[in-house]
Amino acid sequence: MALKNKYQAPTLDEIVKTAKKISPYIYNTPVVLWDSPESHNRFSKKTKLFMKMELFQKTGTFKARAAINNVLALSESQKRKGVTAISAGNHAIATAYAASCFGISAKVVMLSSANPDRIKKAKEFGAEILIAEDGPAGFEMTEYISTTEGRTFIHPFEGYNVTVATATCGLELHEFVKNLDVVIVPVGGGGLCSGVSSLTKLMNPSCKVYAVEPEGAQIMTKSLAAGKAQSINKVNTIADSLAPPMTTPYCFEMCQKSIDEIVLVTDDEMAAAATILFSELKLALEPAGAASTAGALGPLKDKIKDKRVGVIICGTNTDPNSYKELIDRGIKSLKNGVFNYN
Amino acid sequence: MALKNKYQAPTLDEIVKTAKKISPYIYNTPVVLWDSPESHNRFSKKTKLFMKMELFQKTGTFKARAAINNVLALSESQKRKGVTAISAGNHAIATAYAASCFGISAKVVMLSSANPDRIKKAKEFGAEILIAEDGPAGFEMTEYISTTEGRTFIHPFEGYNVTVATATCGLELHEFVKNLDVVIVPVGGGGLCSGVSSLTKLMNPSCKVYAVEPEGAQIMTKSLAAGKAQSINKVNTIADSLAPPMTTPYCFEMCQKSIDEIVLVTDDEMAAAATILFSELKLALEPAGAASTAGALGPLKDKIKDKRVGVIICGTNTDPNSYKELIDRGIKSLKNGVFNYN
Repeated sequence: MALKNKYQAPTLDEIVKTAKKISPYIYNTPVVLWDSPESHNRFSKKTKLFMKMELFQKTGTFKARAAINNVLALSESQKRKGVTAISAGNHAIATAYAASCFGISAKVVMLSSANPDRIKKAKEFGAEILIAEDGPAGFEMTEYISTTEGRTFIHPFEGYNVTVATATCGLELHEFVKNLDVVIVPVGGGGLCSGVSSLTKLMNPSCKVYAVEPEGAQIMTKSLAAGKAQSINKVNTIADSLAPPMTTPYCFEMCQKSIDEIVLVTDDEMAAAATILFSELKLALEPAGAASTAGALGPLKDKIKDKRVGVIICGTNTDPNSYKELIDRGIKSLKNGVFNYN
Repeated sequence: MALKNKYQAPTLDEIVKTAKKISPYIYNTPVVLWDSPESHNRFSKKTKLFMKMELFQKTGTFKARAAINNVLALSESQKRKGVTAISAGNHAIATAYAASCFGISAKVVMLSSANPDRIKKAKEFGAEILIAEDGPAGFEMTEYISTTEGRTFIHPFEGYNVTVATATCGLELHEFVKNLDVVIVPVGGGGLCSGVSSLTKLMNPSCKVYAVEPEGAQIMTKSLAAGKAQSINKVNTIADSLAPPMTTPYCFEMCQKSIDEIVLVTDDEMAAAATILFSELKLALEPAGAASTAGALGPLKDKIKDKRVGVIICGTNTDPNSYKELIDRGIKSLKNGVFNYN
């Protein structure tokens, strides 16, 4: 039986219009070809890896695209009352940035586990930051703020306004590189993945979409298996940006329609990929930013051989000490044979 | 008395033709605007910093432009006999890469102090690597190889073929960003600086060119003061890529004609700049790659206020452990007040 779509997916025309609308506040991020002896050894000489450097986005992540689009959709009265959000970090920075672009007040809940560098960045954009013990407490706090202060809740990944905005990242990639065979995109809640995968199937239906999820936070894997958006009780991964406690209906349906396959990567694989990207592309990534490359180097290696592959480097905000630990772990993982299991 | 030019500088037409000629082997590297609360605080809200990401160049540095151009200029008989070079690292990788593009044999001398990661990268491009104790021994070894084997010596920075090729990096920057007020370029031997500064004065004569040199390796500063190319006996800086024992006549004259001012940066300033670039732009740089930004944050800060500034991130090849040490030093330097002296 064919699935019945409950939700309206963005059209290509809507995505193009959104790209234009958010363009004053957003970068068209560069694409760099990874083509070196190391890439030839690890894949093949004919494998072309086009790395979409979304980490150079405003605020360091793709989240700025969605936050700007959500803020642009506010009514004048909503703008006056301000916004609120909850985030492990990157969405907090993006919401603070988007609010600052339009002189809107932002009160954002972050988790006590959040990277201090991310808290600092969100504050620098003028947001008021509250700290919650954990996710559930944070959602409660956000709801309280929203109810008592009338602030609009800016969701980190749910809804048409998010998907149509993250799709613009995919649009830039496919406009820059024609005839991609494969796009690899990291997935957590599914905000980025829903947009990039939808856009890919609109612009280039024969292009495969592979989603990559941390083994320790299988939200989308579990949801795809169940056929609907699921929650999970516990996450256990270094890729905190890909580890929300759930995905949500709209976002899930968009992902479900357009993902060809989802694969899992371990923390060691993400650390090893971050280390390889450091040596090869001089990028300083948080674990989530290395997830798509870890997918390419690991579980997707044979599938992408000799193909034209777009890899979304989804963004990064990390501090020097965390980064050192990540690279240390990556060096050890590579020594222990990660990515050499074929 | 006006200086008499002994050497022919490249014309804009020649630079454009060179860009076309080397383009199959070279990337047009991206430019990213650094525009964040941190950049607003450190400079001003109106200061626009256009970061030319030359670290994404083939082989990780601009050296590939010159090496390719030099190899393209070889006769068939020269190609058969192969090439030789001497390098602290980046020019070795570039020479190995350029030779590999045309199936030419490369025998390259590297110094025993060279970063092992760089030696590995040069080998991966198929070059035979010999290790010399120090610079003078290395130059002797290279001369011996050149004489006995008939290999053409590919100079790391001297000559028209280098300058016209490094000028293409400047060409890309000025084509991407119109009406720059300032270009900041790192200087060591002067290979990159000679081309970028010459091109800048050809395309946009009113644009200032500021060169940045490590305090512990004042080759160009000393040469500019003396009015001719000088050698120095000792260098003492973490920026080994900017610390050759001398500059050379052609390269010097091109720099002399087009540099408006040269400033010095300390090792602590380069480490601090690398740390800021890590946090702000997610770049993993070697010290030399952070030199131009250190110049912007330090001695040039007041001069570039409210200006449209092009900053050449000149390239980078480093290993994880060296990078960790650099970032550690940068964190300490920032705590100790580096860049807060105004």
